[in-house]
Amino acid sequence: MPHIPLDENLPGITGLLNYRQDTALPIRQLTQLLLRGASTLTEGERELIATVVSHGNECKFCTAAHTAAADVLLGERETAEKVKYDPENAPVSEKMKHLLQIARKVQADARTVSAELVEKAKLAGATDMEIHDTVLIAALFCLYNKYVDGLGSVTPVEPAFYDRLAGILKTSGYLPSPNRYASLNETR
Amino acid sequence: MPHIPLDENLPGITGLLNYRQDTALPIRQLTQLLLRGASTLTEGERELIATVVSHGNECKFCTAAHTAAADVLLGERETAEKVKYDPENAPVSEKMKHLLQIARKVQADARTVSAELVEKAKLAGATDMEIHDTVLIAALFCLYNKYVDGLGSVTPVEPAFYDRLAGILKTSGYLPSPNRYASLNETR
Repeated sequence: MPHIPLDENLPGITGLLNYRQDTALPIRQLTQLLLRGASTLTEGERELIATVVSHGNECKFCTAAHTAAADVLLGERETAEKVKYDPENAPVSEKMKHLLQIARKVQADARTVSAELVEKAKLAGATDMEIHDTVLIAALFCLYNKYVDGLGSVTPVEPAFYDRLAGILKTSGYLPSPNRYASLNETR
Repeated sequence: MPHIPLDENLPGITGLLNYRQDTALPIRQLTQLLLRGASTLTEGERELIATVVSHGNECKFCTAAHTAAADVLLGERETAEKVKYDPENAPVSEKMKHLLQIARKVQADARTVSAELVEKAKLAGATDMEIHDTVLIAALFCLYNKYVDGLGSVTPVEPAFYDRLAGILKTSGYLPSPNRYASLNETR
């Protein structure tokens, strides 16, 4: 049960963003800029960063949600699974492997992002902005993971819930939208 | 040395917020709402939450900055020092002791915020919104700490630097302001 009264039709982050909508707006805007704004990283690649960070923090809701979002954007379910459980053999570029490693270090202890690791990412083609964005996306998903778990929000168990949520994230992005979650609980 | 090229006159978070200003804006707006917006927690109390989280993450820049901000808002330097090193005996209310404990748990592992701890905070007078805001402030400062340390930004050593930064945070808050950092390096 959540630690504060949340709309029971809005599990995970959705109820928290509804609980205090003034603080939700800049959180949504920041996420939209980083995950859907102009970037040399694809939307799928950016969702993979969100996925490995949420997985590292063992936030079940966010891991399931962003795995599903990466899956729908990439059109397959193998890559997100591999970056979580077998990153060395994940079907992503060398550059992405280094960026995902940076993201995991930001999640675990940001002070361990070494100049050597950053250099490797740059040699594999990562730009300064891609390194910046990887670190900030990782930091943002630590915020989300801690917000979701720190208030004990509810984690649905049905995979179909996360596929519906991922559909919303693909079609509508992260900004507020009218009746945003109308389809979220359609089969519950 | 920072992992990406940052203005050397803008150490710590200030150079990062300058590097990518479009993402900086919602981060600043969220911080202003949470730390300076309407609340039943004082500005000093909210800076103490930022302080204990930054201290827990061992982010030297943010710890020094928000210790100095709490000091200038509280008008003394004892409380911030105590909440970091001797929280049981810190001169804060029972409610604040529980909220600071919640914040530290969000920082370390948000899944450890227990219903019992939240209940204790509520019995000591904490409202649902205060619990919400404590968790979100703690999550936000995890973002800041990881952003600052993940990109290897510079940490000034002179205490006077942080007193000048705290003066800006007290007078101007967290939103962008013209010539915001003009006085930051005045004696350097």
